[in-house]
Amino acid sequence: MQELYNIISDPSRVKLDGIEDKYLSDTLGRLKGTAAALVFPVSTEEVSGVMRFAHENGIPVTPRGAGTNLVGSTVPHGNGIILDLSLMNHVLEIDENTLTAVIEPGVFLQDFQRLVEERGLFYPPDPGEKASTIGGNISTNAGGMRAVKYGVTRDYVRGLELVLADGKVITVGSKNVKDASGLSLKNLIIGSEGTLAVITKCILKLIPKPERSLSAVIPFPDLNTGISAVLSIIRANVNPTAIEFAERSVISLGEDFTGLKFPCPEAGAYIIVTLDGRESEVSGNAELLREAAVKAGALDFITLDDPETAANIWKVRGCLVKAVEAVSEQEPVDLVVPIDKTADFIRRVHEVEEKSGMQMVAFGHAGDGNVHLCMVRGNRDDQQWEHDLRQNMTEVYNYAYSLGGLTSGEHGIGVAKRPYYLSSVSPDNLAVMRAIKSAMDDKHILNDHISYLE
Amino acid sequence: MQELYNIISDPSRVKLDGIEDKYLSDTLGRLKGTAAALVFPVSTEEVSGVMRFAHENGIPVTPRGAGTNLVGSTVPHGNGIILDLSLMNHVLEIDENTLTAVIEPGVFLQDFQRLVEERGLFYPPDPGEKASTIGGNISTNAGGMRAVKYGVTRDYVRGLELVLADGKVITVGSKNVKDASGLSLKNLIIGSEGTLAVITKCILKLIPKPERSLSAVIPFPDLNTGISAVLSIIRANVNPTAIEFAERSVISLGEDFTGLKFPCPEAGAYIIVTLDGRESEVSGNAELLREAAVKAGALDFITLDDPETAANIWKVRGCLVKAVEAVSEQEPVDLVVPIDKTADFIRRVHEVEEKSGMQMVAFGHAGDGNVHLCMVRGNRDDQQWEHDLRQNMTEVYNYAYSLGGLTSGEHGIGVAKRPYYLSSVSPDNLAVMRAIKSAMDDKHILNDHISYLE
Repeated sequence: MQELYNIISDPSRVKLDGIEDKYLSDTLGRLKGTAAALVFPVSTEEVSGVMRFAHENGIPVTPRGAGTNLVGSTVPHGNGIILDLSLMNHVLEIDENTLTAVIEPGVFLQDFQRLVEERGLFYPPDPGEKASTIGGNISTNAGGMRAVKYGVTRDYVRGLELVLADGKVITVGSKNVKDASGLSLKNLIIGSEGTLAVITKCILKLIPKPERSLSAVIPFPDLNTGISAVLSIIRANVNPTAIEFAERSVISLGEDFTGLKFPCPEAGAYIIVTLDGRESEVSGNAELLREAAVKAGALDFITLDDPETAANIWKVRGCLVKAVEAVSEQEPVDLVVPIDKTADFIRRVHEVEEKSGMQMVAFGHAGDGNVHLCMVRGNRDDQQWEHDLRQNMTEVYNYAYSLGGLTSGEHGIGVAKRPYYLSSVSPDNLAVMRAIKSAMDDKHILNDHISYLE
Repeated sequence: MQELYNIISDPSRVKLDGIEDKYLSDTLGRLKGTAAALVFPVSTEEVSGVMRFAHENGIPVTPRGAGTNLVGSTVPHGNGIILDLSLMNHVLEIDENTLTAVIEPGVFLQDFQRLVEERGLFYPPDPGEKASTIGGNISTNAGGMRAVKYGVTRDYVRGLELVLADGKVITVGSKNVKDASGLSLKNLIIGSEGTLAVITKCILKLIPKPERSLSAVIPFPDLNTGISAVLSIIRANVNPTAIEFAERSVISLGEDFTGLKFPCPEAGAYIIVTLDGRESEVSGNAELLREAAVKAGALDFITLDDPETAANIWKVRGCLVKAVEAVSEQEPVDLVVPIDKTADFIRRVHEVEEKSGMQMVAFGHAGDGNVHLCMVRGNRDDQQWEHDLRQNMTEVYNYAYSLGGLTSGEHGIGVAKRPYYLSSVSPDNLAVMRAIKSAMDDKHILNDHISYLE
């Protein structure tokens, strides 16, 4: 590993011992890996040098950004190298003429969003964790709240500079809008969780910033009525930006955690809808939305015209994982079902909850069937927790699969969801994915042992 | 090839001799290939049987739909099999609860669009050729007019059933909206021009049908002023569905061809913009659009409120390739440049036109930099045509590449654009694409010799 000092120009950016725990895990900190080196490259050339060295010597490499993932995809394995890209955090260009930006992968989502909004532009992908890096967002194809209207990270990646497993540097995609020129390597890399190449530059699509954004809280007597209303909302053709749902029980935890209050506490569940666009468009759509919601059984329709109220409501919605985590250790589940199956699925979750005695808190993105479940540990000891968790997760995943669902909508598979993912994917699909992995990373050094591709 | 009679259940769907010319070419009919067999499978099982047989025997296979492509991607090679999917043309499901449809690849775009619109739904991808099949649209990632607002075919493919080169059947993607579960094989297949797998089923995304659609013809004194106005239109935040451009000279050919008339014949060029959405939204945006256009130098702003006038205008716009072709043989070029480089690019095209004496007609999708050029043969003999075409194409492509452009925005590469594409792509990029090709098609039987992947 001494060779790394010849590759990375400043020795303070190479650590061969005393690697802090936070670099050996994800944001939950429960899985802990091992590594022989931690490097902080500042250029594509340095990343390329590290990969060339690792490839020649068959050394595992774990790329990481802010490490905010929830599935262990940044838990390093063996005597490998952690490639931390957080110093590659420069915004290289904001091109108002093509509505694109060129940035390094270590730029924080929140910084980038603020920067483009100051210029009247907008970067729609909006995963819950704003202190994540754009490189990480691309690697997991991060989704978030605004996906209903604007799509996910994939839809805003125009191009990437990549360092391949053997250190070669290629560019895929471009600033161009349309592209029917060759295999879409760009789209293969998006969501590949660092298993195929290292992202060193990102060309992103921007749009004009919407003139106005308006959210509304819509309380329902129970979750089933609320979730069933979502399809009416979608069919009402009001072009919602976000359609979130949360049960009253989890909102109460959020209220305790933040000290803030949600309206209509007698509700069983809430749907929160955001509309954005031009002033007149938003007002018109809000009226149609109110009609659709009331018809579908809403108890009330509370528009959040006041920015402070709106901010508080979103603060409560945004803290839910942390609010649950504050009460007890929990395992986050990020599965997705076809939108018309969400209510069915959550009903089954509550059956499993009742049967097993393990608390399961549900909230998430009702507009796209992406359900976040927190499996709550409570006072189980290690062995009981591991046993019960595995059993309940298996049951919940299997039910989701029987409805046509998927393991992950936006967190990725990583190491934490690998067994559940592998139980859902056909051997022939997996063989194709593994053949592609071998084609791009012949020595299987990139995030191999922490993925389903090993 | 006799074995094919055991695979395809009805002998009338196997042809071992007398294969008609139309199956040996693309829609232009100038390139002509050879094949030993033509089969019309009606099921995934039959496609799988054909591929297994071809794989075992190393026989080249050329999948095709309606064969409306313009780049020779359905020109078969050697003593192979033409796999015509046009009998697999059933709409299997339109699921209004998840806003998805499941169809076979041989369904015509125009039939599918009509069918979903009858149910108040909408399938936005809208390439010029409506008698193309959806399978072909997916294989070329077809774009079209509405891409500015709605994106391209890729954005509406939720899932695919695929027959791999060795006959195995896999499903990639699903009805789910979000997906961070495994490598996106679906996205790798989209736009791969039949080189990696055969599409046998398509799960497509639908949206609610817009309430109203309104087009406007905006004449400008010259193309440069018109194209320069496009960015102002995009920045005006009116969410245009389509922004097309055409020079007066090519519109005149279209008028002659159709017998219809365009307004404001003294214009040098036209921009045609479509807006859609809710009634009030469209009217409001039309006003803002008019302001932006006039400010940017428009001679007039003619809204096409009357459906017949609108249909006539789009009929002229839609016939332009055929209108040019009626006057002389022509080579269609489908390149794309960053949106702010379109005017620059077309200025250079006209310099090359003047210098070379070869007529070059430009029109296309101004909203996304996707320029369609017709290189017009005129009265050149074969040798002169081939020589001049190659020279001018090279010059035009090289200029596009110097502006950051790409070979194809929506037609694909095929065999016709291969040399120009290969001159633009780095050896390391190509090596990755070829490694993926080999990983998925070890004997290189799928569209190999008519692609850049051989």
